[in-house]
Amino acid sequence: MNDVGRRTGRRPGKQDTREAILAAARQVFAERGYTGATIRTIAASAGVDPALVHHYFGTKEQLFTATINFPVRPDHLVAEVFGGGTAEVGERLVRTFLRVWDSPAGAAGVALLRSAVASEQGARLMREFVTTQLLRRAMRQLAVDPAEVPTRAALVASQMAGLAVARYLLRIEPLASAPADTVVALIAPTLQRYLTGPLPPTPGAGP
Amino acid sequence: MNDVGRRTGRRPGKQDTREAILAAARQVFAERGYTGATIRTIAASAGVDPALVHHYFGTKEQLFTATINFPVRPDHLVAEVFGGGTAEVGERLVRTFLRVWDSPAGAAGVALLRSAVASEQGARLMREFVTTQLLRRAMRQLAVDPAEVPTRAALVASQMAGLAVARYLLRIEPLASAPADTVVALIAPTLQRYLTGPLPPTPGAGP
Repeated sequence: MNDVGRRTGRRPGKQDTREAILAAARQVFAERGYTGATIRTIAASAGVDPALVHHYFGTKEQLFTATINFPVRPDHLVAEVFGGGTAEVGERLVRTFLRVWDSPAGAAGVALLRSAVASEQGARLMREFVTTQLLRRAMRQLAVDPAEVPTRAALVASQMAGLAVARYLLRIEPLASAPADTVVALIAPTLQRYLTGPLPPTPGAGP
Repeated sequence: MNDVGRRTGRRPGKQDTREAILAAARQVFAERGYTGATIRTIAASAGVDPALVHHYFGTKEQLFTATINFPVRPDHLVAEVFGGGTAEVGERLVRTFLRVWDSPAGAAGVALLRSAVASEQGARLMREFVTTQLLRRAMRQLAVDPAEVPTRAALVASQMAGLAVARYLLRIEPLASAPADTVVALIAPTLQRYLTGPLPPTPGAGP
């Protein structure tokens, strides 16, 4: 479908190549999910060399955030929130989340969440990218039992997704219009407990 | 558009009339929201007497749940969860929520949530029905400051919506497959705090 990068008459411009890679990436991510997609497959689908994809977009994570028009680097956000240790990590998580979603970048978040809720393809991308890649990896920086990380990440994802739905999509007052400080004070204790508090014993689990 | 209920040749059957009322109700709810829609307007739009709408569907709340194919009466659920007082109300709320969503009725919940996230009309219906009508009214049965009810209802809505998104739409493990008892143990403390725990002082509020 796409022959940008092959020599067919005029040499394609840099912008054409970037757009071709983005289009191929969107398709491959949708078809194979975040985990199944590779830079190599995306490059092949765009008809370019994998090195060119790395040159324009960096890592697979950066390429993915470019496909959803997310203007902030997730690894920078992760470092900001989780690099500061366990104390008050819940507060930093809500505060950083609100700073991004209250900014123009929030539109990309709303679009990602809408597509995640609307289709299985979108749900898989959100699940693999946000929960598995981003949250679980970030949580390895905290002093918590690695065996508990999936449960904690899922709980955090549930409250963050719910906050996004309530504040930005359903616009439920007073959460929709409350200043960031108020939302942080209300939600941070929940996230702190999910991230670092004691988890209840799992029914049926051994001693 | 709809002339069922007027005499045009054969007298319409009971099933036709029910369906005509439901179709009119869906349209009026979408156009005017839950609060703006009335039994009278819906009856007029369906070309029937308001008494017939009450006869077939009961209250506006029951008519609304019929339009979304929700097979459980919300007022019964509210009585079950909030009628038992403040102690362990968070636990009863998660348990009842999971019993409904884990059942075949969950499909109606998923559809409602999808439409709420996809469009402003759907968002307004969800906001007005679940938050304003259902949750706020239910919480008046608890011994909490009425001035705090909107904040508490919005917080509860955020965690419940997030649980539904994580467990049923994104299917984030282990939340997606965990038995109800496990989910109750993990989420109930959050809801108990949102419903009855101390709220942080609002920044900027006077002493």
